[in-house]
Amino acid sequence: MHLFYTPDLYPEVKEYTLNEEESRHCTKVLRLTIGDVVFLIDGRGTLYEAKIHSESKRNVGLNIIHVQQEYQKRNHHLNIAVAPTKNIDRIEWFLEKATEIGIDEITPVICERSERKVIKEDRLFKVITSAVKQSQQAYHPVLNPALSLSDFLKKTTAGSKMIAHCIAGEPRKYIQELIRPHGNYLILIGPEGDFSPAEIQLALQNDFKPLTLGNTRLRTETAALAACFEVNYLNR
Amino acid sequence: MHLFYTPDLYPEVKEYTLNEEESRHCTKVLRLTIGDVVFLIDGRGTLYEAKIHSESKRNVGLNIIHVQQEYQKRNHHLNIAVAPTKNIDRIEWFLEKATEIGIDEITPVICERSERKVIKEDRLFKVITSAVKQSQQAYHPVLNPALSLSDFLKKTTAGSKMIAHCIAGEPRKYIQELIRPHGNYLILIGPEGDFSPAEIQLALQNDFKPLTLGNTRLRTETAALAACFEVNYLNR
Repeated sequence: MHLFYTPDLYPEVKEYTLNEEESRHCTKVLRLTIGDVVFLIDGRGTLYEAKIHSESKRNVGLNIIHVQQEYQKRNHHLNIAVAPTKNIDRIEWFLEKATEIGIDEITPVICERSERKVIKEDRLFKVITSAVKQSQQAYHPVLNPALSLSDFLKKTTAGSKMIAHCIAGEPRKYIQELIRPHGNYLILIGPEGDFSPAEIQLALQNDFKPLTLGNTRLRTETAALAACFEVNYLNR
Repeated sequence: MHLFYTPDLYPEVKEYTLNEEESRHCTKVLRLTIGDVVFLIDGRGTLYEAKIHSESKRNVGLNIIHVQQEYQKRNHHLNIAVAPTKNIDRIEWFLEKATEIGIDEITPVICERSERKVIKEDRLFKVITSAVKQSQQAYHPVLNPALSLSDFLKKTTAGSKMIAHCIAGEPRKYIQELIRPHGNYLILIGPEGDFSPAEIQLALQNDFKPLTLGNTRLRTETAALAACFEVNYLNR
């Protein structure tokens, strides 16, 4: 199945032209020609079956012959709100891996102990997009604008809200004790150095349930990915 | 709890001197002094309680006052045999994360479609060691020498042997359908481009069970980490 990522394509469209890069890939690498069938995915869950009607190095013209919506629809909704790491590579790595495994939204949250207060959202978005292409995801995860934890806690709504903090001795539960399958989940992951006690209190006052990801010491991006793995596993 | 990683320390030893770097950390950063208690971990599951008896910038002398073996003993054994990725950063990243989450052995396996046939084992070992320190693991995972898949299949023994391949339509099961808790597990993860059909056949002939990690398309290092997460989760 030859799949192209085409975020500028919409279900009502009947004809589409691959961009120069994809046209070249289509003709030179895949060696496809007129009459061959390819598939297009728009990152919003629509899969398009298309037939090549014209072909050149720079432009491959397609007729859309079949449209399937809610392709590979996910059976739950996961938003991971995570403090950007001091070393941005680590959060970029998380974005790539979470996209491969399955995530709906990522929300960068700036915390009291965050060493990094600013992120380049366009760059992070590109990391997600390339992971969407590489892992052939039907849905492009949403990257929400970064905001402070206090603003985030005021705004947020979700079925199950959880905060993963590291204060030993405090009562915390595993994800599987806190969620039901096919739910709408929001998991908050803190910065290097954890949330401050005041931040944890504020989250608990806003109906976040305290969460543990196990008894090993995880980096911020590892904890975020562990939560992503566990939620997808529990919704398998 | 001030914890130092001291792989050159053994249970019978009664006195120990921190190396220059750790001595400086102990006196300048942690501001510890004579009479203070620190903990040492040897990477072989022994935790040492020690009291500072002498102190200088370069040398902090310790009396071992208590030794606990099998500290944080893991309740299962996991060996992940993985084809090194073309981009070595990806496998290094896997080593760091797997160490944080919990793994006992990593075995680099060179496959038919491996674009990378050579690895620098000392470099990979250093990545594991720094993750052991950072995540305060009691056990330093073993990095086995790299070997070819055929040699590996001849040598290997384990309770549950699994191979994660990507051939759609072939019968494959989830890890939780294949393993019992507290077992000895060996999971084989292929290179970019997957195992060859002949390699899969050879593995099945050697009692490897075909494994799926879900229906999303995962990179080599992501698949290896997903397997590591799942095994640890199932043994929680």
